[in-house]
Amino acid sequence: MIHLSLIGIGTGNPEHVTLAAVRALNEADLILLPRKGEAKSDLVDLRRLLCRNLLEASSRARIVEFDLPRRDARADYLGAVDDWHGAIAAVWAELMATHLPQGGRVGMLIWGDPSLYDSSLRIAERLKSFMQSAAGREGEGELQVDLQVEIVPGITSLQVLTAEHRIPLNALAEPVQITTGRRLRERGWPSDAASVAVMLDSGGAFESLPPEGLYIWWGAYLGMDKQSLIHGWLVDVAAAILEQRAALRERHGWIMDAYLLRRV
Amino acid sequence: MIHLSLIGIGTGNPEHVTLAAVRALNEADLILLPRKGEAKSDLVDLRRLLCRNLLEASSRARIVEFDLPRRDARADYLGAVDDWHGAIAAVWAELMATHLPQGGRVGMLIWGDPSLYDSSLRIAERLKSFMQSAAGREGEGELQVDLQVEIVPGITSLQVLTAEHRIPLNALAEPVQITTGRRLRERGWPSDAASVAVMLDSGGAFESLPPEGLYIWWGAYLGMDKQSLIHGWLVDVAAAILEQRAALRERHGWIMDAYLLRRV
Ligand SMILES: C[S@@+](CC[C@H](N)C(=O)[O-])C[C@H]1O[C@@H](n2cnc3c(N)ncnc32)[C@H](O)[C@@H]1O
Ligand SMILES: C[S@@+](CC[C@H](N)C(=O)[O-])C[C@H]1O[C@@H](n2cnc3c(N)ncnc32)[C@H](O)[C@@H]1O
Repeated sequence: MIHLSLIGIGTGNPEHVTLAAVRALNEADLILLPRKGEAKSDLVDLRRLLCRNLLEASSRARIVEFDLPRRDARADYLGAVDDWHGAIAAVWAELMATHLPQGGRVGMLIWGDPSLYDSSLRIAERLKSFMQSAAGREGEGELQVDLQVEIVPGITSLQVLTAEHRIPLNALAEPVQITTGRRLRERGWPSDAASVAVMLDSGGAFESLPPEGLYIWWGAYLGMDKQSLIHGWLVDVAAAILEQRAALRERHGWIMDAYLLRRV
Repeated sequence: MIHLSLIGIGTGNPEHVTLAAVRALNEADLILLPRKGEAKSDLVDLRRLLCRNLLEASSRARIVEFDLPRRDARADYLGAVDDWHGAIAAVWAELMATHLPQGGRVGMLIWGDPSLYDSSLRIAERLKSFMQSAAGREGEGELQVDLQVEIVPGITSLQVLTAEHRIPLNALAEPVQITTGRRLRERGWPSDAASVAVMLDSGGAFESLPPEGLYIWWGAYLGMDKQSLIHGWLVDVAAAILEQRAALRERHGWIMDAYLLRRV
């Protein structure tokens, strides 16, 4: 039996972990830490720091780092993502078979909240079918391969964005749309929302909107020491945001940013 | 100088508080605990429990409970809300003047995350103008009344909903709309979203949608011992949810529920 905890850890501020996350970490037998390539090594560092600071002396957790397979950059986006999830599930399955042959509790530190634009839950589904077909191959098709998944919620980047800007996510009693840079470019302003929160923007999707009447609150490296915030009327600050984004990305070698737009 | 911390505490699970929330509580001189009337006394109990469990011996916090003014049920919704925020700000101002005449750090425990359908930030804005006009009345118009507001993010009910159902909030790379029961009834399915998360529904706003092709994940008392979950095709489970909701509300005297709908 494998018990897999997907543990939300927030997005950079080590104090954003919850007591439930601390407990889940300490109950793990195995903690898997993905490495994502040199540029984003800050993100791995935060995970290492959390393990170092939060694991108590009584913890029996073995910490194993592994290299995350790379995603194909091919045009068929959904197909590439699907293959990628399969490749990651295969790596997870192998690591668990190696380090927990008798089963046990596995913890994975998930950036932000595991439910928001994160693939771990989908990879866990793939893992289940991997484990089942592996059991089948060994002639143990009758054997019930048991994978229990638990999710520990974590503070999302959008919550840090609004907290640091000291603003509500929603206009009073109004809807909010959470979307991606890609969708914002493709579809424009969603017809029914007074506020739009944008994640996974490779840069400046807001430029595709007519800026009149739109206010923007932007943040990069939210929760981290290098956090950067800009806010103002889109028409006034759009250029400054793009400049700042390019400069920061150049300086740090990587960037993650998110923003909230509101019709005011 | 008043330093006001709006501290997100999650929505029922005491382990959902973050280390930052624990720290903010412990740094407060004054903690204000609103009472919301008998029916929802569970919610006050959770706040009391958190204070009891999380305040360390070194804390100098004085805990003061107060009755939350009631909101007018009049038809002019936004006007009634505005008056209500003003009334609450007046109570806050008075409590701070009484208990912290020399200024200091005030902590308020906010349900879920302070940025999501919560009025504390707007009330804090009103508080600022109250304090300024009070200073003006005492002939200290020149005096800078300083109110510093800090927000400590907290786990939202939607995050507990998705964690407990073990589902992502968004369909892969697709937008999500967060809305209220009222807006869902008025406007129907938002045109641009694959998923819709509904809060503040006084009951069954999903009934206003054509149910075909919609899947629902519903949860009440999320994070609490009495948590209740139902999921399924809307066409199959809508009636069961409404029945369960009525029964639970009857049993406990109050209910809070939220749900995610997805076109599958
Ligand atoms: C794959 S998604 C993961 C989101 C994560 N699960 C969460 O709860 O925030 C990555 C996107 O989240 C946003 N993001 C995550 N961490 C961030 C941070 N520290 N600062 C700014 N944006 C961040 C960016 O929009 C980034 O493109
Ligand atoms: C005034 S809003 C506050 C939301 C809160 N700030 C949050 O982050 O979840 C209240 C609404 O949140 C949802 N809610 C809050 N706590 C909940 C719980 N424990 N279980 C289910 N729904 C909850 C319900 O939809 C309720 O009508």
